Amino acid sequence: MKTQVAIVGAGPAGLFLGHLLRAEGIDCVVVERQTPDYVLSRIRAGVLEQVTVGLMERLGLDARLKAEGLVEEGFNLADGERLIRIDVAGLTGKTVVVYGQTEITRDLMDAAPARGLPVLYGAEDVAVHAIESDAPFVTFRHDGADQRLDARFVVGCDGFHGPSRKAIPARAAREFERVYPFGWLGILADVPPCNPELIYANHERGFALASMRSHTRSRYYIDVPLTEKVEDWSDERIWDELAIRLGPDAAAGMTRGPSIEKSIAPLRSYVFEPMRHGSLLLCGDAAHIVPPTGAKGLNLAASDVHYAAEALTAFFRRGDNDAVIGYSAKALARVWKSERFSWSLTKLMHRFPEDGPFERAMQVAELDYIASSVAAQTTIAENYVGLPV
Amino acid sequence: MKTQVAIVGAGPAGLFLGHLLRAEGIDCVVVERQTPDYVLSRIRAGVLEQVTVGLMERLGLDARLKAEGLVEEGFNLADGERLIRIDVAGLTGKTVVVYGQTEITRDLMDAAPARGLPVLYGAEDVAVHAIESDAPFVTFRHDGADQRLDARFVVGCDGFHGPSRKAIPARAAREFERVYPFGWLGILADVPPCNPELIYANHERGFALASMRSHTRSRYYIDVPLTEKVEDWSDERIWDELAIRLGPDAAAGMTRGPSIEKSIAPLRSYVFEPMRHGSLLLCGDAAHIVPPTGAKGLNLAASDVHYAAEALTAFFRRGDNDAVIGYSAKALARVWKSERFSWSLTKLMHRFPEDGPFERAMQVAELDYIASSVAAQTTIAENYVGLPV
Repeated sequence: MKTQVAIVGAGPAGLFLGHLLRAEGIDCVVVERQTPDYVLSRIRAGVLEQVTVGLMERLGLDARLKAEGLVEEGFNLADGERLIRIDVAGLTGKTVVVYGQTEITRDLMDAAPARGLPVLYGAEDVAVHAIESDAPFVTFRHDGADQRLDARFVVGCDGFHGPSRKAIPARAAREFERVYPFGWLGILADVPPCNPELIYANHERGFALASMRSHTRSRYYIDVPLTEKVEDWSDERIWDELAIRLGPDAAAGMTRGPSIEKSIAPLRSYVFEPMRHGSLLLCGDAAHIVPPTGAKGLNLAASDVHYAAEALTAFFRRGDNDAVIGYSAKALARVWKSERFSWSLTKLMHRFPEDGPFERAMQVAELDYIASSVAAQTTIAENYVGLPV
Repeated sequence: MKTQVAIVGAGPAGLFLGHLLRAEGIDCVVVERQTPDYVLSRIRAGVLEQVTVGLMERLGLDARLKAEGLVEEGFNLADGERLIRIDVAGLTGKTVVVYGQTEITRDLMDAAPARGLPVLYGAEDVAVHAIESDAPFVTFRHDGADQRLDARFVVGCDGFHGPSRKAIPARAAREFERVYPFGWLGILADVPPCNPELIYANHERGFALASMRSHTRSRYYIDVPLTEKVEDWSDERIWDELAIRLGPDAAAGMTRGPSIEKSIAPLRSYVFEPMRHGSLLLCGDAAHIVPPTGAKGLNLAASDVHYAAEALTAFFRRGDNDAVIGYSAKALARVWKSERFSWSLTKLMHRFPEDGPFERAMQVAELDYIASSVAAQTTIAENYVGLPV
C-alpha cells in the first residue's frame, strides 16, 4: 500500500488528523492495533477547549457535540468547605464544552468512511521504519497477512505505549518526566451531577473531582495511594469518601448510584523532545502526558494535530518544507504551557507524602489568595479554556 | 518602671510600634539588647510597600524617605538571557520605594526623643513574664542594675531569636517551617546599579539578584550552597558570577567595585501561630520569617505593627478588647499571603538540589507563561506592591 501520510493510531488524535488531511485532499491511512469497540471503551476526560470544538466545527462534525455537549461557563476549586468559583466566561469571554472523549472518537469514527478516510483496525505488530529517509513506511499484520504501508510522512498518534516514539533514536531525543505518588480512582455512574459545574477539591483527606458527561451521567474521582486496589473500594465507600472530600454543599447535591466503570489511573507528567524526527511526527500522548487535573490531555492532542495538519498541508499543497521543520518547536511551546498548568493544578489540589505542615499551609494560602484575586482567577481561567493556538 | 505597653526590640518593628502608640498618646517603653550602632549595622532589604511608606507618612517622618528614596515602577524577572519586565505601576497603579531598612531604622531612632519614646539600648538578659495575666512584665539588666518594666501589654518585636516568642507555651502554639538548601551571598558596593530596576534571575548556574540602595550604592546577591564560606568568594569571583547569571544586558551595565559588606544569609520560611497569647503580642520576625525573595520581611513587620497599633489603640482609647483578641487572625491572614508569595517566588527563581530536568522545565515554562500573560504578570505585581491591609 502507498499513501501520502501514514497515521499510526485511531484514537482522537489520529482520527482528527486523518479528517483534517482528507479535508485538504491529502491521502492518508490510519492503522490501529485495537478494534473499534475497544477504542470506544476507553473512558477519558471530557472537557473540550475552544481549539478542540473548533476542529469539530471545521470538519462539519459538530452536530451532536452542539446538541449534546454541555457548555460550561465556570468551574470550582474547593478546600473541603468553601467553593471558589472560577468565572471562566466572565474572565476570558470563552467557555468550555463537556462532551466525552469517547463521543468525539465515535463522531470521527462514524464519519470516516464517507470522508474517504481508511482506518485499518486490529493491525498487529505495528512498526515504523526508515523515518530518517523521505520514504518511511509502516509494517503490520492485518487480516492474517503482512502489510507494508509506504508514505512520505508517518505521524505517530499511538499514545504513550505505542511504537512510533520508540522509533526515534535516543541520541536525538530528550525526555522529561515526573511520576506522581498517587492515582485517581474514578467512578462513572448514571446519576445527575452534584453540581452543574466541575468541582476540584483539596480536602485534608485528599483530592476529589466532581465532573459529568451529561445531565444524567456523572464522573467522580478521588486520589488514592498507588498501592490501593479497585476491589477494596465498594461503590458505597467511594461515595462516602466523595461526600467528605467535596464538602457539605456538593455532598448535599450528590446522587449515589451503581458504578458503570471503576478504575485507578496513575498520574504522570511526560514530555518527549523533539516532536518530529526526519519524516516522523508525533501527536498527543505519543509525545507527552499530562496529569488529568485540568483536563488538558485531549485538548493538547487537538492542538498538536492542528499544527501537524497545517504543516503537512503546507508541504503537500505548496511544497513548503519549513512548516514541517518548525512543527516540533511550535507544538512544544504550547505543550510546555499545558504541562505547567496541569502540574501546578495537580500540586495545588493534591496532598503529597513528602509535604509537611508548611507545604499544606501554602496550599491553603494559595486557595485563599485565588479566592481574593481577580488576576489569580484569570490565570487559572485562561489556562482552563486553553491558551491561544 | 511602669508603662502601658512594653516593647521588646528596637528594630524597625519595635520603633514603628512605639511611634504609632506615642502618636495616640499611649505610654510605651522600648527595650533593646543591642547598641544603636549595632542595630544600624544590620544590612537588610530595602524595598518598601505602600503600607510601609504610609506608616512613615502618618508619623510625619517621611521627609528623608521622600527626598532620597527611589520610586520604582517595575522590576524584572530574568532567565539568564531575557528580561521579563513586570510593569508594577501599569498593572496595579501603585509603586514601591527603594530605601534601606537601615535608613528607616535611623529615621525612627532619631525621632524617638522628640516624640517622647524611651528606648533603652544595651539591655541584657531580657525576659518576658506573666503573659497569661493582665499584668505582664519584662525584666532585664540595664546600666548594671536589674530592672523590671510593668505593663498592660508586652509586644515582642525582638526578631526570630528573641525571648518573646519563647515565652508562649508550646501547648498553645503551632509552628510551620521550611528551610531552604542554599543561602544568599550578598555584596554591597558603592557603584551605580546595573539597571534602574531590580532584576531577579534564574540562570542555569543559579539565582542572582541585582538591587540597589541608591543611585550610587548597589546590592547584589547570588545563591550558594550552605556549605560555602564567604572567605572563598573574592569580590572578583562574585562579580564574575553575577555577570553570567544576570545575563548579557545586565552584565553590560554592571559597574564593579570593592565590597563594603559581604555575607551569606540562610533562607527560611517560618510562621508561628498564634501571634497573641494572653497579654503578649508578636510582630515581625518574632512571629514569622520569609525568604528575602520579593522583599517582604520589613513590609510584613510594618503591617503587623499597623494591626497591633490599631488593636492597642482601641483598647486604651475605647476599652475595646475585641481588637486585641482579633489581632492574631487579622495579622496572620496577611502573613500567610506574603509567605505564599515569598515561597513561590523563591521556588520559581532558584535551583533546588532535589529538582530534576522536569522541574527545571517547569520553571522555564512558568517564566515563558509569565512573559506572555498579563494576568500572570498582574498576580506578581499585586503581591510585589503588597496586598491590601
